[in-house]
Amino acid sequence: MSMSEPRTIVVALGGNAILQPGHKGTFDEQDEAVKLTCEELAELVAHGDRLLVTHGNGPQVGNILIRHEMAAGVVPRMPLDVCGAESQGQIGYMIQRNLRNALRLRHIDAEVVTITSQTLVDQDDPAFRSPTKPIGPFYSRDEARQAMAQKGERWIEDAGRGWRKVVPSPDPVAIVESEVVRQLLAAGMVVIASGGGGIPVRKAPDGRLQGVEAVVDKDLAAQRLAAAAGADILMILTDVHKVSLGFRTPRQRDLDVISSSEARRYIAEGHFSPGSMLPKVLAAVRFVEGGGDFAAICSLEEAIAALAGRAGTRVTRG
Amino acid sequence: MSMSEPRTIVVALGGNAILQPGHKGTFDEQDEAVKLTCEELAELVAHGDRLLVTHGNGPQVGNILIRHEMAAGVVPRMPLDVCGAESQGQIGYMIQRNLRNALRLRHIDAEVVTITSQTLVDQDDPAFRSPTKPIGPFYSRDEARQAMAQKGERWIEDAGRGWRKVVPSPDPVAIVESEVVRQLLAAGMVVIASGGGGIPVRKAPDGRLQGVEAVVDKDLAAQRLAAAAGADILMILTDVHKVSLGFRTPRQRDLDVISSSEARRYIAEGHFSPGSMLPKVLAAVRFVEGGGDFAAICSLEEAIAALAGRAGTRVTRG
Repeated sequence: MSMSEPRTIVVALGGNAILQPGHKGTFDEQDEAVKLTCEELAELVAHGDRLLVTHGNGPQVGNILIRHEMAAGVVPRMPLDVCGAESQGQIGYMIQRNLRNALRLRHIDAEVVTITSQTLVDQDDPAFRSPTKPIGPFYSRDEARQAMAQKGERWIEDAGRGWRKVVPSPDPVAIVESEVVRQLLAAGMVVIASGGGGIPVRKAPDGRLQGVEAVVDKDLAAQRLAAAAGADILMILTDVHKVSLGFRTPRQRDLDVISSSEARRYIAEGHFSPGSMLPKVLAAVRFVEGGGDFAAICSLEEAIAALAGRAGTRVTRG
Repeated sequence: MSMSEPRTIVVALGGNAILQPGHKGTFDEQDEAVKLTCEELAELVAHGDRLLVTHGNGPQVGNILIRHEMAAGVVPRMPLDVCGAESQGQIGYMIQRNLRNALRLRHIDAEVVTITSQTLVDQDDPAFRSPTKPIGPFYSRDEARQAMAQKGERWIEDAGRGWRKVVPSPDPVAIVESEVVRQLLAAGMVVIASGGGGIPVRKAPDGRLQGVEAVVDKDLAAQRLAAAAGADILMILTDVHKVSLGFRTPRQRDLDVISSSEARRYIAEGHFSPGSMLPKVLAAVRFVEGGGDFAAICSLEEAIAALAGRAGTRVTRG
């Protein structure tokens, strides 16, 4: 263990840290993937750093929505916010148990805890006027048209695979359980929070929180979480080694270190795809602009190396 | 707010605090029931007491199992421990949001947090040799026989409604996240934990925690939780007003106050039904024998009155 003041590191796990591509998502597959992921995470804790973990939930909440849909004739289907809460329990439990096991094997006694997390969004976010995030199973054109006409929902045709409902993806404003996260980290615990970007809620005129049918980007939520926790480092783990310009073109150029102003310029020039690298780079930029030491975007396997500046793309303030 | 040292009260909510009898369990029904429940819980906090909430998950995990079963041809079904984790997220979110709203309306700023909770059980618990707890949907006799022959499972015929799988209901040994609960309560937060009795886990020979296909009684888990939290009072809320001898017979006698030794004698005499009042009385007895001030078994509506000794059945040490 390092004897210096511990740093607080937020690690945002991508979907493939839990459910690897090409897998159907059986429990054994997911538990094995989570176990491998937790070996890496345990190394971070072994270095003496404080760890706050967040994660995506795309494949898992997709499966939950399919289950709710297929059983809807027998048991009532739950709204998207409740399905998100289910996915937090499911994934949080798998990470929490495996990470605790990995820590104990290293003789580290830190507690590991998952908290059910809500993310506040703004009712006036422009995303509510143009839903873009596909959720749930595929349907026929007729079914989609019926839902659009009868329920006022928005649906899109997805690359020949069928029609899917789309929901808004508003910007996260705040993590409702920020204070809880701060207290647990200060007590030396490893915290798992804001799974799937957090359960989106809005403030009603009377001040009450209400669930919202929306999906918050998990990397943008990770930045809000990191800022709320006063974290030093934000690590966004994904399935590529570095951020690139001209990704998958003959002129692809991988980036080692970029300043936040360079990153903002690349964003404005349209280098990053909206559903994938853009929110990661934006989250990194916001994090360092808000006072974080640095952000790293890298692969899971290279997390330790990226922390030392030997892998991934590092985003710095400037 | 009281100016004296705050007491810590553990409230164990029964199923009807979340899903009322005769309801199918739509989101609106459950959210409304939770909202009413949280009005009562907020009153406890308004009295100046520290609150730790736990809850059953019978109807909700039942619905989750049905969904997993009906969609099993399309998306992999998850084991019972993962389904329990899903139910903790789902129910915890509903309580957490509604309780926070109820507190804010009373100008109480306390944080409310749900933690994903595991309950340690003993591999050698005799319950593993005789599973008794029915779970999941009903099946035909042929399907049940096939599962018994091929998978070595135990199934029972349930009062003419069909066949159901039964799983063990081992005694809870410890709450894995005890230290987390203690820290959060000490920080003045309202904590929701051990939903559905907690996700049952056992310690493998190498020390790792593994999920177990079992169901822990939520009232017995509530007692372990209360003891771990050093709680002063355990309140078990249910759908009857008091504990009775000769329940629903012409000689029914309702109990106002009983000592733990009286309660132990009534248990030994077989006064309480195993699937319902017995674990509640046993949990109350264990709690006061372990040093708790008193336990109360009462209806949700009479919780405040029971706390003042004007309703419900109080169990005291002696």
